Amino acid sequence: MWQQNKLTELFGTSLPIVQAPMAGAAGLELAVAVSEAGGLGSLACAPLDAGQLAQLLEAASQATSKPLNFNFFCHQPPGENKIQDQLWLDKQAPYFDELDLPAPTELSAGVIQPFDEARCEVLEVRPPAVVSFHFGLPSSELVARVKATGAKLISSATTVEEARELVARGCDAVIAQGFEAGGHRGMFLTDDPATQIGGISLIPRIIDAIDVPVIAAGGIADARTVTAALMLGAAGVQIGTAFLFTKEATISRIYRQQLLASNNISTALTNVFSGRPTRCLVNRMMQETGPVTNDAPAFPKGFAVTAPLRTHAEAKGCPDFSAHYCGQSAALAQPATAVEFMHDLVVGTNEHLNKMAALSLPLSGP
Amino acid sequence: MWQQNKLTELFGTSLPIVQAPMAGAAGLELAVAVSEAGGLGSLACAPLDAGQLAQLLEAASQATSKPLNFNFFCHQPPGENKIQDQLWLDKQAPYFDELDLPAPTELSAGVIQPFDEARCEVLEVRPPAVVSFHFGLPSSELVARVKATGAKLISSATTVEEARELVARGCDAVIAQGFEAGGHRGMFLTDDPATQIGGISLIPRIIDAIDVPVIAAGGIADARTVTAALMLGAAGVQIGTAFLFTKEATISRIYRQQLLASNNISTALTNVFSGRPTRCLVNRMMQETGPVTNDAPAFPKGFAVTAPLRTHAEAKGCPDFSAHYCGQSAALAQPATAVEFMHDLVVGTNEHLNKMAALSLPLSGP
Repeated sequence: MWQQNKLTELFGTSLPIVQAPMAGAAGLELAVAVSEAGGLGSLACAPLDAGQLAQLLEAASQATSKPLNFNFFCHQPPGENKIQDQLWLDKQAPYFDELDLPAPTELSAGVIQPFDEARCEVLEVRPPAVVSFHFGLPSSELVARVKATGAKLISSATTVEEARELVARGCDAVIAQGFEAGGHRGMFLTDDPATQIGGISLIPRIIDAIDVPVIAAGGIADARTVTAALMLGAAGVQIGTAFLFTKEATISRIYRQQLLASNNISTALTNVFSGRPTRCLVNRMMQETGPVTNDAPAFPKGFAVTAPLRTHAEAKGCPDFSAHYCGQSAALAQPATAVEFMHDLVVGTNEHLNKMAALSLPLSGP
Repeated sequence: MWQQNKLTELFGTSLPIVQAPMAGAAGLELAVAVSEAGGLGSLACAPLDAGQLAQLLEAASQATSKPLNFNFFCHQPPGENKIQDQLWLDKQAPYFDELDLPAPTELSAGVIQPFDEARCEVLEVRPPAVVSFHFGLPSSELVARVKATGAKLISSATTVEEARELVARGCDAVIAQGFEAGGHRGMFLTDDPATQIGGISLIPRIIDAIDVPVIAAGGIADARTVTAALMLGAAGVQIGTAFLFTKEATISRIYRQQLLASNNISTALTNVFSGRPTRCLVNRMMQETGPVTNDAPAFPKGFAVTAPLRTHAEAKGCPDFSAHYCGQSAALAQPATAVEFMHDLVVGTNEHLNKMAALSLPLSGP
């Protein structure tokens, strides 16, 4: 039975389906709906300080008794680099002129902070079922403290080497993040987007290399893609973009419109929005400034430029400066509620497995 | 039964497995072995003139009565561009100095020619079972003449738009070439490698868009990946890199050594070897000159530089200048004969389907 395996045992869920953490796009309502439907809802905590994190943990515990995943970043905080930062500010200045907006005078790191001791202390007070990291893992001391809470530990790998490193450092399961995935690449032992690997290759290669359950991510959006991930050997899937099509997703109207038109809009990896490679719907800023450039500032300083541009432009219905995160399978997704989507996915996967079972020959042949 | 469907009916084969055409790496011996084993062997004809093509057709008809696929390019022949060509020659000159080789004084288009009337006439004399094209299709007049021979017509799509165009222009089946694939991207309605799509996303999206059988290509190398392609809806698969591991592959010793070490060598799309994006094992020339650069000459003029560099360097055991075409699943492949590989793939796929069938619930649940 595909719905129950080592991964669901680990998480305490009834389905091996993880809703991807998506800052600004997936809040408590979506995560709780997913977990109540048997999956693992996720909460993106990178933009929260320790106090806000404590509030979210409290609110989550009141909203559901089901397992939830709290996700944190562990990027290296950007150092001072005034020359590179000023070059980037100069390069983007014409956009601020065009929108008649005051340009920032420096690139602040903003609210997105790596996981640290203060946040760890908050987790220790009220440990969630699962803690996931992106961009590798925090220090061994913090990893040990998170694991000591009883929370299960997961993180994303974009290469076989990264998967091995995550297991060596204590991960209970590994997300194999295929090239198709929307949002930021979890890469942490490489910084070269050119060598990133598609799911059909990455998933079995990682499965062959490690001994913990593998969660397939990237391009998973319907019953066919879930079934394919299972065939490749994945124990479960992590789904992002398809959840952006749900009623519960907290995205702007223009982002939703862009997703609905995504059959006709390409996506690409770009570092112009944040400083790190992330997959987004191609727009003007990506085309004019990237999509990948060596001039981009250190993550997450890029947001100091793109956040004000985006807010101002979106208010006028313009997507030119928005990081509209989107995977390569958006065209397979449909508007629905989270519960409808989960239900259709489970029923559909089961039907698809049954249909395909008929394709197999008895083991005696051929 | 997965082995028999509309695609095998179309090709007259007993298995829906196509060996990818690979110029210089896969000759008549490999193609015949694959076709005799029930698949569709392919012959890369882009480097052959009409006389050589006639000889190959003759030799093939003597070697097997099974269906074979003859593959041609249909790129736009490069125009004159002396300034761009000279810049490229100047940029590569230090490599010739280093190897103590005379540098070419111009970029000739060399032997790789697009499909034309002369080649079409040869096909009309002795039509193969299948004719495949790369980089789109030739003129409508030539397409009509090829189809009039009775040969089935296929070509590669890297986007949904390209798949629709291929069907509209008469293709009997379409190869969905995922981002993972080794060798040249078949792209012909886009020239932007940044928006190319991974197989998990591309295959179902193309299947939803067209009404002819879809052949999955890119990262298919073992039973798991074949089964995943079937789950995504593909009628069959095209396999390239895994066939390079067979005894019959006509590749240099150093290319074979590189493939065997490919677990530890990344691949990337690059246009520095030929002028068009192609996936190769990362080497010095890709790192120093690309992997993708706007300065690259028009395809196939790049070979005028890389062919002499490669020949000279490989003779010394050096892979620095070689286009070692390789997909992202090389690590899943094993040395074998073509017949052993085909046998293991078919038995393995069937076993895997049987195993996975046990995961499905009865249709009444859940």
